[in-house]
Amino acid sequence: MRTLVELIAAKRDGETLAAAEIGHLVASFASGALADYQMTAWLMAVFFRGLDDQETVALTDAMLYSGRVLDLSAVPGFKVDKHSTGGVGDKVSIALAPLVAACGVPVPMVSGRGLGHTGGTLDKLEAIPGFSTQLSAADFARIVGEVGCCMIGQTAEIAPADRRMYALRDVTATVECIPLIVASILSKKLAEGIDGLVLDVKVGRGAFMKTERDARALAEALVRVGTRAGKKVVALLTDMEAPLGVAVGNAVETREALDVLAGGGPPDLVECTMRLGAEMLVMGGVAQGNADAGARLARAIATGAAARTAERMIAAQGGDPRVVGDRSLLEVAREEVVVEAAHDGYLVRVDALAIGLAAVAMGAGRTRADQRVDPAVGLYIDGRPGMRVTRGQALARLRVRSKEDAAPVVERVAGSFEVGDAPRAARALLLGRFPAA
Amino acid sequence: MRTLVELIAAKRDGETLAAAEIGHLVASFASGALADYQMTAWLMAVFFRGLDDQETVALTDAMLYSGRVLDLSAVPGFKVDKHSTGGVGDKVSIALAPLVAACGVPVPMVSGRGLGHTGGTLDKLEAIPGFSTQLSAADFARIVGEVGCCMIGQTAEIAPADRRMYALRDVTATVECIPLIVASILSKKLAEGIDGLVLDVKVGRGAFMKTERDARALAEALVRVGTRAGKKVVALLTDMEAPLGVAVGNAVETREALDVLAGGGPPDLVECTMRLGAEMLVMGGVAQGNADAGARLARAIATGAAARTAERMIAAQGGDPRVVGDRSLLEVAREEVVVEAAHDGYLVRVDALAIGLAAVAMGAGRTRADQRVDPAVGLYIDGRPGMRVTRGQALARLRVRSKEDAAPVVERVAGSFEVGDAPRAARALLLGRFPAA
Repeated sequence: MRTLVELIAAKRDGETLAAAEIGHLVASFASGALADYQMTAWLMAVFFRGLDDQETVALTDAMLYSGRVLDLSAVPGFKVDKHSTGGVGDKVSIALAPLVAACGVPVPMVSGRGLGHTGGTLDKLEAIPGFSTQLSAADFARIVGEVGCCMIGQTAEIAPADRRMYALRDVTATVECIPLIVASILSKKLAEGIDGLVLDVKVGRGAFMKTERDARALAEALVRVGTRAGKKVVALLTDMEAPLGVAVGNAVETREALDVLAGGGPPDLVECTMRLGAEMLVMGGVAQGNADAGARLARAIATGAAARTAERMIAAQGGDPRVVGDRSLLEVAREEVVVEAAHDGYLVRVDALAIGLAAVAMGAGRTRADQRVDPAVGLYIDGRPGMRVTRGQALARLRVRSKEDAAPVVERVAGSFEVGDAPRAARALLLGRFPAA
Repeated sequence: MRTLVELIAAKRDGETLAAAEIGHLVASFASGALADYQMTAWLMAVFFRGLDDQETVALTDAMLYSGRVLDLSAVPGFKVDKHSTGGVGDKVSIALAPLVAACGVPVPMVSGRGLGHTGGTLDKLEAIPGFSTQLSAADFARIVGEVGCCMIGQTAEIAPADRRMYALRDVTATVECIPLIVASILSKKLAEGIDGLVLDVKVGRGAFMKTERDARALAEALVRVGTRAGKKVVALLTDMEAPLGVAVGNAVETREALDVLAGGGPPDLVECTMRLGAEMLVMGGVAQGNADAGARLARAIATGAAARTAERMIAAQGGDPRVVGDRSLLEVAREEVVVEAAHDGYLVRVDALAIGLAAVAMGAGRTRADQRVDPAVGLYIDGRPGMRVTRGQALARLRVRSKEDAAPVVERVAGSFEVGDAPRAARALLLGRFPAA
């Protein structure tokens, strides 16, 4: 085996490392034999030289086995999770997990917290009174078995090498590197003990990937590497120029996701949930193609089966299940400040990034991992791209604890709406599927 | 000013950083605001993207002013130092500093210790009984003024940022990067308070630069950047395929360097000393071209002026000046083990790297900075490239404290001599000059 410094030099010089060599690097990083300052040099070399699929599988595996892999073998059925690369207003998981579980596909879901302009599922779930996302692995497996789904936070035991590497990447300009992103996502998701994974790769202003080209490359790499790692993997490319749905915040987003289970919700959010759900049902073997899957999802909503699954999951995780039927139990800040259109015209752009940052500034998100969020504050984005607006029309409603809290962000929210003279066709939500359907 | 992470990203993306930005990076590294793991990511980005001359000057400057710059303004004259990029048997400085000083050019010299296969001037000087290389800055300046030369070790005050950066580069595969090498060398040398610098860039098996192409690129960059930094700089490219001179070790090398001051010494060592000395005299303004300089150097040796300067410097630094006249006062281990030619033929190669590593294994050098060296052990390399040899002829003589000490390295030393059927012309010592003469 080459020395650790020789392995850094080998990647620097464009060599392909053997799986055992990548395993040795990660194990040495975990043990402390490879220092942080050596890992970051290797990461920067990877930024320039890349990793091929076999190396990426090896890195995924090494990070996965740096921690605990949840054992869901006692849960019958083909277990499928969904992962989104993150965006603004993306509350899909909260509706999707119980919906898919109600149709017979077990969904073990480990989610993250918000950071920067993107929100996090855990923060949104915690707007439900009593809901706990910190469960033991045994409770997690039991609830997936009994209810069909369970949604928890990443524990210290899941892929600890990835967590340390990600923290280093964040401060060394080595985040934007597709094989590193792929290994980071997959190592965490594979630790859930899943059989298949449906990915929602977001693209646009509010997404991590700003261009369709980059997002496509990421989606393709996730599918190739995940498949090589022995899982069924499908990726959808979906639009994230404007926020998804109307609500941006925590309680407001959870309310909106539960609206979907009640048969309501904004059309783009419903479409996104249904598209991803259909993929999960087909992958899980309970539906014969998209049309069948769509019908099953619609039926689970119409019959209330999805809502009942959500209630059971919330109750099992210590939360108040009545929120499913009565969303007003999720506290939203009382004061409302309206942002109006300054002149007549057409909305040509609603900037998800600017709105996400405004939500953070209002206290709904965080800029550092140790910050707390306020579940009750948030925004309703009434202006949708393509819409005709007249001067004085409400484009956004900010929900705050006192009106002064809104003052610092009103300008930013107003500036996130671009009004033009001519209508511009709104982008389709679904921009691609990998592998091609 | 951009954030530190933005500066890492900028270099990663191939941007040129402003001098103030590089200054900010280095100052932040010195203060701890930029962590080691961020510096190594930046260094790896520099490995791939390079630094232009202006950036390299800025890095040199920032590292230089991370510490103390010696003030030799009280010493009259144009002060010139010599720096070698390191090799095997390179004891030139020990003869050169007093020789050039005796001709009227002050030589303030800060040297290093041996590490790996290359020896270090400090280790060789410390073979002189009582000689101290740890002097205060005030004593250093005083001795340069009184004697004309002084040879000390790098203090903690000289370019501390460079020392920390070098330690990181050593373990992150970022040593082999010309702008980083240039800034490292120049920041330390410029801290001596010199006006001009003559560089001896070694090339070949025993050198850091293995190919003439790389060595040329380094020499040119050193001259360009040093000149931009406001100093007179000349670089010679000299051969380091085979060891320089006959002796390899500490006391044996100091003896050989002092032989040169007595008018003796092996021809290649004499040539190297004279070529570098001539450059220093011309640069220092005491000679009108190479011929005049050569005559002055020869006269300083013939009249004993150079030896007297060496005695005064040694005495001023606490050493026994009698070693200049009686080199046997430098203790060399008594036992001798001879490595003989295995068959008749011509020496086509004497591998400086293998011999350097054998010297380390004998105890004359070190593999880690905290190891001690034995000044008395060493080798005499009698076999020279191009020489006709007959079976049984001595190629090398190992000087050890007991014969068993030689056993582990005899094979390696024997293997460093390649005997062929036909003579091969020996490489010239001087391979180039920058700028071209």
